[in-house]
Amino acid sequence: MKLATLNTNSGIRIVGVDHSGETPEYVSLSHFDPSIPNSIREMLQHPFGLEKCQAAFDKGVQTALRVEGQLLAPIPDPQKVLCIGLNYRDHAAESNMEIPTEPICFGKFGNTIIGPQTDIRLPKVSSQVDYEAEMVIVIGKRGYEIPQDKAFEHVAGYCNGNDVSARDWQIGKPGKQWMLGKTPDTFAPIGPWLVTSDEVGDPHTLDVKLRLNGEEMQSGNTKEFIFGVDEIVSYVSQIMTLLPGDVIFTGTPAGVGMGRDPQVWLKDGDSVEVEIAGLGVLQNNVVG
Amino acid sequence: MKLATLNTNSGIRIVGVDHSGETPEYVSLSHFDPSIPNSIREMLQHPFGLEKCQAAFDKGVQTALRVEGQLLAPIPDPQKVLCIGLNYRDHAAESNMEIPTEPICFGKFGNTIIGPQTDIRLPKVSSQVDYEAEMVIVIGKRGYEIPQDKAFEHVAGYCNGNDVSARDWQIGKPGKQWMLGKTPDTFAPIGPWLVTSDEVGDPHTLDVKLRLNGEEMQSGNTKEFIFGVDEIVSYVSQIMTLLPGDVIFTGTPAGVGMGRDPQVWLKDGDSVEVEIAGLGVLQNNVVG
Repeated sequence: MKLATLNTNSGIRIVGVDHSGETPEYVSLSHFDPSIPNSIREMLQHPFGLEKCQAAFDKGVQTALRVEGQLLAPIPDPQKVLCIGLNYRDHAAESNMEIPTEPICFGKFGNTIIGPQTDIRLPKVSSQVDYEAEMVIVIGKRGYEIPQDKAFEHVAGYCNGNDVSARDWQIGKPGKQWMLGKTPDTFAPIGPWLVTSDEVGDPHTLDVKLRLNGEEMQSGNTKEFIFGVDEIVSYVSQIMTLLPGDVIFTGTPAGVGMGRDPQVWLKDGDSVEVEIAGLGVLQNNVVG
Repeated sequence: MKLATLNTNSGIRIVGVDHSGETPEYVSLSHFDPSIPNSIREMLQHPFGLEKCQAAFDKGVQTALRVEGQLLAPIPDPQKVLCIGLNYRDHAAESNMEIPTEPICFGKFGNTIIGPQTDIRLPKVSSQVDYEAEMVIVIGKRGYEIPQDKAFEHVAGYCNGNDVSARDWQIGKPGKQWMLGKTPDTFAPIGPWLVTSDEVGDPHTLDVKLRLNGEEMQSGNTKEFIFGVDEIVSYVSQIMTLLPGDVIFTGTPAGVGMGRDPQVWLKDGDSVEVEIAGLGVLQNNVVG
């Protein structure tokens, strides 16, 4: 099942995505089960939230009732936007960094989250804004000290993500902390929808691509992960309680703008697309 | 005015703190103005939220009506928990770090925020948990690209904070990012209340003390700041839109456990008190 957050003219709704036609159509789930809330984050807090959504979608998709609106980020307001650095060997190499022996973690704040129909805004103070195509884990069940062999039970599903990065602020500032370069407003596009774990199957076999103005800039596969989804979830849960709706960016393959010769930086008018097999296409325009 | 978030038996309330007696007493503000919401973060989103609170408090404090309950963090759920590192010269020296030329910024997630009557929980995976007494800025008004000479208009007030830090996770992990060592659950006690800017006056003249089991471990003054409140607010707003309720930890003076000989780490049964002049005392027990 694919779930999206749609801003309709009757308010924000969780919708199921119907792919049977040429263009995706949206089924409002609370219309078919009024107990379903209007926030995926809140829905995931209910033990049978996803099952209720599936039942409502199965019922709704057989009707002609569809809704329209603006796609927001599937989770517009996660408590945590956690990111893993250097999780593909080729990207570690192009960044001149050693292969990490434990997941490298850093964070963004909620101001970074945007959906597929919102622009990436270049801050005036950066001239080196880069893209990073990433698979994003969406947490479905609260957990602390999660054993690795139980980790997938805590994953609701996955979506495309773009870990936009101001390299001049990420690297070379005093203290060498990446956070400021990672957390400018609009720097974490996710979507267009959350694809549930059952539909994704094995998350470690997915092609990951990024196109800039139509040209392929990144092409990898999640089989190249240094740390898998279950390792990452278990590792970070030693430190923090994971909550439904938390999102974890899993790192990017080679091909980022910083690693090219000449280097490539995002500029006003660019179009960036992230496409991970089975997760749809996340397209954002760049302004600034 | 001092504002606190109190969990009463009729629900969570914003209260004003009455200090006229021996022990602080709490005046429920929505009782005297039902338009005042039950969240300081939400109240700060209203243009005249603080003025309404002051009027309700002035009315309520003259009555005998008081409420009781558990003090929560003044802002239990900020969108951003931003921290400044090495903002006192003596702490930079004890950490063997250079005096920074720009504010060093890092983040914690919302899972870290606790109030004065909640325990700091030691994670099983760390054996080097340290304290850091810090003045915390609470943002009162939304802003982006805030000029330094307008920055104080965006500050609602201040509170005590303890930037609890797992040094073994903060330092020496691959990638050298501090985030994981800074963001274990319960690692950002703040409170006991938010003291509004008008009552604090100049925030750059305040004694900052930390006591561990009654013994003074840190003693500094915010006049030693490398970067002042207005510089910090203006600097970070070049990157991110600040929102009402965002909190910014402003760095710690010398005397942390890591810099001592022998080093001192928090342990089960410890009591930690942060006391900044005019901001009350933030006391937390340590368990684990």
